[in-house]
Amino acid sequence: MRSRLPDQVAEALLAPLVDQHCHGVRRDDLVRSAFETLITESGAPAPPGTTHFDSPLGLAVRRWCAPLLDLEPHAPPAVYLARRAELGAEEANRRLLRAAGVVAFLMDGGGDGDLLSPAETGRLGGAAADEVVRLERVEEEVAAEGLVSLDYLDRLQREVEERASRCVGLSSVVAYRYGLDFEAGRPSRGAVLAAAGRRLADPKRPLGDPVLLRHLLWLAADVARERALPIQFPCGDGGARPSAPHRGDPARMAGFIRALLPLSVPVILLDCYPYHRQAARLAAAFPHVYAGEARPAALTESLELAPFHKLLFGSGGAGVAETIYLGALNHRRALGRLLAERLAEDEWSAADAVRVAQMIGSGNARRIYRL
Amino acid sequence: MRSRLPDQVAEALLAPLVDQHCHGVRRDDLVRSAFETLITESGAPAPPGTTHFDSPLGLAVRRWCAPLLDLEPHAPPAVYLARRAELGAEEANRRLLRAAGVVAFLMDGGGDGDLLSPAETGRLGGAAADEVVRLERVEEEVAAEGLVSLDYLDRLQREVEERASRCVGLSSVVAYRYGLDFEAGRPSRGAVLAAAGRRLADPKRPLGDPVLLRHLLWLAADVARERALPIQFPCGDGGARPSAPHRGDPARMAGFIRALLPLSVPVILLDCYPYHRQAARLAAAFPHVYAGEARPAALTESLELAPFHKLLFGSGGAGVAETIYLGALNHRRALGRLLAERLAEDEWSAADAVRVAQMIGSGNARRIYRL
Amino acid sequence: MRSRLPDQVAEALLAPLVDQHCHGVRRDDLVRSAFETLITESGAPAPPGTTHFDSPLGLAVRRWCAPLLDLEPHAPPAVYLARRAELGAEEANRRLLRAAGVVAFLMDGGGDGDLLSPAETGRLGGAAADEVVRLERVEEEVAAEGLVSLDYLDRLQREVEERASRCVGLSSVVAYRYGLDFEAGRPSRGAVLAAAGRRLADPKRPLGDPVLLRHLLWLAADVARERALPIQFPCGDGGARPSAPHRGDPARMAGFIRALLPLSVPVILLDCYPYHRQAARLAAAFPHVYAGEARPAALTESLELAPFHKLLFGSGGAGVAETIYLGALNHRRALGRLLAERLAEDEWSAADAVRVAQMIGSGNARRIYRL
Repeated sequence: MRSRLPDQVAEALLAPLVDQHCHGVRRDDLVRSAFETLITESGAPAPPGTTHFDSPLGLAVRRWCAPLLDLEPHAPPAVYLARRAELGAEEANRRLLRAAGVVAFLMDGGGDGDLLSPAETGRLGGAAADEVVRLERVEEEVAAEGLVSLDYLDRLQREVEERASRCVGLSSVVAYRYGLDFEAGRPSRGAVLAAAGRRLADPKRPLGDPVLLRHLLWLAADVARERALPIQFPCGDGGARPSAPHRGDPARMAGFIRALLPLSVPVILLDCYPYHRQAARLAAAFPHVYAGEARPAALTESLELAPFHKLLFGSGGAGVAETIYLGALNHRRALGRLLAERLAEDEWSAADAVRVAQMIGSGNARRIYRL
Repeated sequence: MRSRLPDQVAEALLAPLVDQHCHGVRRDDLVRSAFETLITESGAPAPPGTTHFDSPLGLAVRRWCAPLLDLEPHAPPAVYLARRAELGAEEANRRLLRAAGVVAFLMDGGGDGDLLSPAETGRLGGAAADEVVRLERVEEEVAAEGLVSLDYLDRLQREVEERASRCVGLSSVVAYRYGLDFEAGRPSRGAVLAAAGRRLADPKRPLGDPVLLRHLLWLAADVARERALPIQFPCGDGGARPSAPHRGDPARMAGFIRALLPLSVPVILLDCYPYHRQAARLAAAFPHVYAGEARPAALTESLELAPFHKLLFGSGGAGVAETIYLGALNHRRALGRLLAERLAEDEWSAADAVRVAQMIGSGNARRIYRL
Repeated sequence: MRSRLPDQVAEALLAPLVDQHCHGVRRDDLVRSAFETLITESGAPAPPGTTHFDSPLGLAVRRWCAPLLDLEPHAPPAVYLARRAELGAEEANRRLLRAAGVVAFLMDGGGDGDLLSPAETGRLGGAAADEVVRLERVEEEVAAEGLVSLDYLDRLQREVEERASRCVGLSSVVAYRYGLDFEAGRPSRGAVLAAAGRRLADPKRPLGDPVLLRHLLWLAADVARERALPIQFPCGDGGARPSAPHRGDPARMAGFIRALLPLSVPVILLDCYPYHRQAARLAAAFPHVYAGEARPAALTESLELAPFHKLLFGSGGAGVAETIYLGALNHRRALGRLLAERLAEDEWSAADAVRVAQMIGSGNARRIYRL
């Protein structure tokens, strides 16, 4: 692929990326069953006689990650995992994260339990690392404090404000907690108080109440506006065992997106696959909407219409460092293939190709997250 | 691309097209900010430090339109716009419209304010030009006349009949005014009268009432049946700042489509991207349904299954003549790529390829619109 | 295509397939109008001046099936049908079914009227043939027996149990009878009895009542669990003249899929196009979910993410034997193209490619259907 590209385009593809969407990866050594679970979306063992290595991601690990651990490409799973254990998780993570060629990790989560924190990820990956604050996580910590409704709401506001002062962006998983077809407007004070009362009667559950989710989003919107922070929305059909995946289509959130327009808060639609074309349309239609797609097909199809200043690289990596490295590699390979085609068809100039690669790879993220 | 194609296939691709779906383009000279707004779907300026020329459409303007204005391919935006101004809008429009290689423009709108009328478009483009009557526009003119309900309904019927006598098709944007999930059946006379009363209390708003929209559609269906006119439905997720883009999926209109089947009125689903595969399925499943897709990817994917006598070219061009020229060019290039692949894989004969190009490019439109 | 593949990969592609999803094909000679209707989804004649042979399927019949009947590729429709008649339907069916290279047909339907039964299909195709029992068909036979509600429900249960003892899988078309957004849980005994009463007042209609459809599904789930049978769900937008095609998106069935998880009953999502990416996601997210796609584009796009042990070949053939042969051919060609690309890009090893072809072509079906 690379051979078909002019030097300056190949260089632009290899330039350091801003990974504006990744999660913590495991810092401990992993036995095979644990590793397999982390490279699947089902969170379940593979059926008898099968292995989760027999998947697009599993083959990519063997093909592209094995050489980073000094193995031949396509090493068998057992060989790969034995070598990974031999090197130790820290060394494996260091090699994989450095090979990603990332200049800054914007991390949603990490630091809990066996997951590398942003600081550790940055140190191992030779990069800066900044935090994206997951709104529902903040709420769940506040809900667990055993407050009464009014104190809970005050505390929630102060805590979101406080966290916002130390991060580069906010994020919400309302897509998976309720669905993106939530009502657009600010909920009334009365409705929020009633919902808070119900919430505090059972504060251990994950937050799923649509009134409180909306309250949290509007609170976040005000804070984001004041601090010029973007809000990320992981969309799509929602990871492990979703219950209403079609409600993760970002098109269903268009009413809320419109309502945010006057605030000029950037809305980042993340990993919307298989609704990535809908996300690209929203990014084209609304000046404050951006799209970030980790899957190669989604990137390619988004480039059918989205403005180049509206797309952002993000590996979407989570669980094992392989996913971050492969996210970056897949981005470069997919974009490289697309640019090679555009150049071969004489549609874009090499200078255009360079600019597109730079904008999506790091330039847009630097602008939006003010890095 | 063209070199891989047998001569008769290349000729079929270059044959004049019927552009069965375009809008008026600006007749006046355009400063950069105005031009940029017209090549975007957001209707908003690009964020500071960016330009709407950094989009698939913007690069295509520089690559393909620049040579028509005597510039090198990939001319910078400022050079392109300076040359466009130097030539003047009329000469630029003439060159772009002629280069589209269109034998007939079927125009939805045009003639208002600074937009070229169908007659002007035809004259500049060296082609015939016919009108498609937008139903909601007719209603809004009638609503503005200050009539009482019964007179308004009579006048609406007479006006649709009268306009239908001078056009080649009708069109409805119910997708954007309400959504394609409207109730299928004819509304009752009582419901229509009540809706008319509400409507006339506030006649300046765009028509959004679902009862009146359905009334208008059924009125149009009767007129279309009598005059053998097709009805166009722009679908998809709906242009600038949509509020419920997923409701533009034409699959949601299947009930109404079924209800129209006994009338044999052709239903043309336009620009359904990203729901174009759904449109292709409807075109395959219903004898009176057709699909017209301007986006190259949508055309290619529609050809996975839609019968060739059910697809229609339409540039979807609007605002600036560049969009009409590029619509035609993209159609020829995308179809050329697809035909070259089918021939290279030894799947279709050259005679098949010629017939497919002719049907989609002009033959189907001539048949359906009785040109 | 084949030339770019290493020998062992080409052999794996040519190995006998398990066709886990096909229907009966006509055993009688067919005049042109009947044949044309059977290669379309509209069930209607082509518009005047057009032919259903002008479709992707029609061109494929002329290109690939003609040589099996001793004709040149791309034979004209009239020549093709004359030769087919000359050979006789039995000989044509024999040639087409054998050329499919299928080792076992799992047939949903067949044997009624002019359709080949599973036994006949197997004999002509030189393959085993097993039955998949369509649940709604069982119910409609029981409903026609003129029983009272309690006896009807007992009889329905006994009949599903009895049929299950002689088949390799069950199937439900709830997607087309109601929509996949049915309520997930078991209906109450009272609700089922009430629905049975309504049903038996008008037992000739196709089953469309959502309570009885759910009752039937849960009854089937219990039987399937006991006998280790999978349940197939044809999804997608639903064949001829659908009334709510978007409700055939399998994502809408995620609640029911979750509810089935503890039963470990395999759920096979069939022909979900254009919602095949949603199906692939469900197959990746749920350990008991599988996807089977007949369309080349759907197979290719499913392989963006679905584990290889979760995809199943099925021709989806119906009506004429050409559709079964072309289903198998298209599968081999599409998978061959994809494997050639993966190998050319140095992404997969040849051994990986072989394993992927074997799993999807027959291995997964042997495991799940216990062949």
